[in-house]
Amino acid sequence: MTEITKQGLIYTGKAKAMYETNDPEVLWVEYLDQATALNGKRKVAIAQKGLLNNRIASLIFQDLAKHGIANHFITQQSAYVQLVRRVTMIPLETVVRNAASGSFERKFGVDHLRLFKEPVMEFFYKSDQLDDPFINDSQIVALNVASADTLAEMRRQAQLVNHRLQEIFGAMQVQLVDFKIEFGVTTDGKILLADEISPDSCRLVDQTTHESLDKDVFRKSSGDLTQVYTEVLKRLAAVEEEKPCI
Amino acid sequence: MTEITKQGLIYTGKAKAMYETNDPEVLWVEYLDQATALNGKRKVAIAQKGLLNNRIASLIFQDLAKHGIANHFITQQSAYVQLVRRVTMIPLETVVRNAASGSFERKFGVDHLRLFKEPVMEFFYKSDQLDDPFINDSQIVALNVASADTLAEMRRQAQLVNHRLQEIFGAMQVQLVDFKIEFGVTTDGKILLADEISPDSCRLVDQTTHESLDKDVFRKSSGDLTQVYTEVLKRLAAVEEEKPCI
Repeated sequence: MTEITKQGLIYTGKAKAMYETNDPEVLWVEYLDQATALNGKRKVAIAQKGLLNNRIASLIFQDLAKHGIANHFITQQSAYVQLVRRVTMIPLETVVRNAASGSFERKFGVDHLRLFKEPVMEFFYKSDQLDDPFINDSQIVALNVASADTLAEMRRQAQLVNHRLQEIFGAMQVQLVDFKIEFGVTTDGKILLADEISPDSCRLVDQTTHESLDKDVFRKSSGDLTQVYTEVLKRLAAVEEEKPCI
Repeated sequence: MTEITKQGLIYTGKAKAMYETNDPEVLWVEYLDQATALNGKRKVAIAQKGLLNNRIASLIFQDLAKHGIANHFITQQSAYVQLVRRVTMIPLETVVRNAASGSFERKFGVDHLRLFKEPVMEFFYKSDQLDDPFINDSQIVALNVASADTLAEMRRQAQLVNHRLQEIFGAMQVQLVDFKIEFGVTTDGKILLADEISPDSCRLVDQTTHESLDKDVFRKSSGDLTQVYTEVLKRLAAVEEEKPCI
């Protein structure tokens, strides 16, 4: 592979900036030192957040790939940069819940962290204009957002991701309450896990102290985000380094 | 069958009152001359509404039964009264949409009456306290509201109901935009179509004039409900009486 160089900006999101590279199949992702809440209405600079999330997401994507769950991650290029495979994003957030929290808890009035026998899976239609509405399968198909086959494949992969993430976080003495993932479609038509998996997109609770180890400390202003993400990375690195390279 | 007599009130809903009878398997349903909107916040007396909806629902339930779609209807007892089979209601509204309108149109910002290739199907969790939230299959299962098998059976029956209702309303020169149905479980465990099918629960549009022929004239104060429901009953009776009894 020739050396990858950064080229034009594609877009800047809530916590990442995405650039083209000299390889049309490869994107350059810079993790930013900022956090947003309330769908972007609140934005704050946070020291080292990009560095921490880049490292956490890189370790998780590598782990998933090793466990047979293909994803867009190619390599961690530097402290703040990942190279990823270019895909056409499917405009859906896939949320997997192992216990009640956040919008589910509020909407259905159930106890915080009530465990589900089977994981709950939800899709949200990514549209700033529509405020990312909750959407079901038949609505997704009717609006030509994705086909029933694509949804089945996303669900299948989301179950595998949930299974492996529960193993990883379990080894870190962390409960995986819920998480959000996104998928893209490769040029050869495969549904591929993309975007990011980090404490920005997972709801994590320490199994001993029951404290939040995720972006909820920022949403609720209940703790120091840098400190919490540093703790998550420390435990994750310990778990990932225990395993021999395959 | 011995003569059925009305006994104690079970509950009064938005447009119907339900009573026990001397037969534990039979309920006495009185259709009321009233309409509500905004989840019951607005309630108005409307002449003949109960009589009209009782007759319309009776004709539709009889037609569906003749077409192999079992339902709770036993007989029309009088102008305002139906006898129905007692079932344990499943607390879900099943909404079937053939074209965009109402909450779908608002939520997804699509054109009014845009046709869907395949019907959209939605479930809403009946809970006044929670304001009847939109709910998906995995949430329904997680909250023990219904099993996946029950949902599959409700979906199967809802498709059949939609197919037959489109035939009935098509013969009346009326477009069936969407409708809401509810199901119950019989003492022997069968999922049975129940509640009511009428212009209160269907969105109907005249194919020629494109005027509403349903409760939207009340919701939007755009017409005379009694006049509109009388027109629906006139056309429905003409269609149903054309067919020989089987």
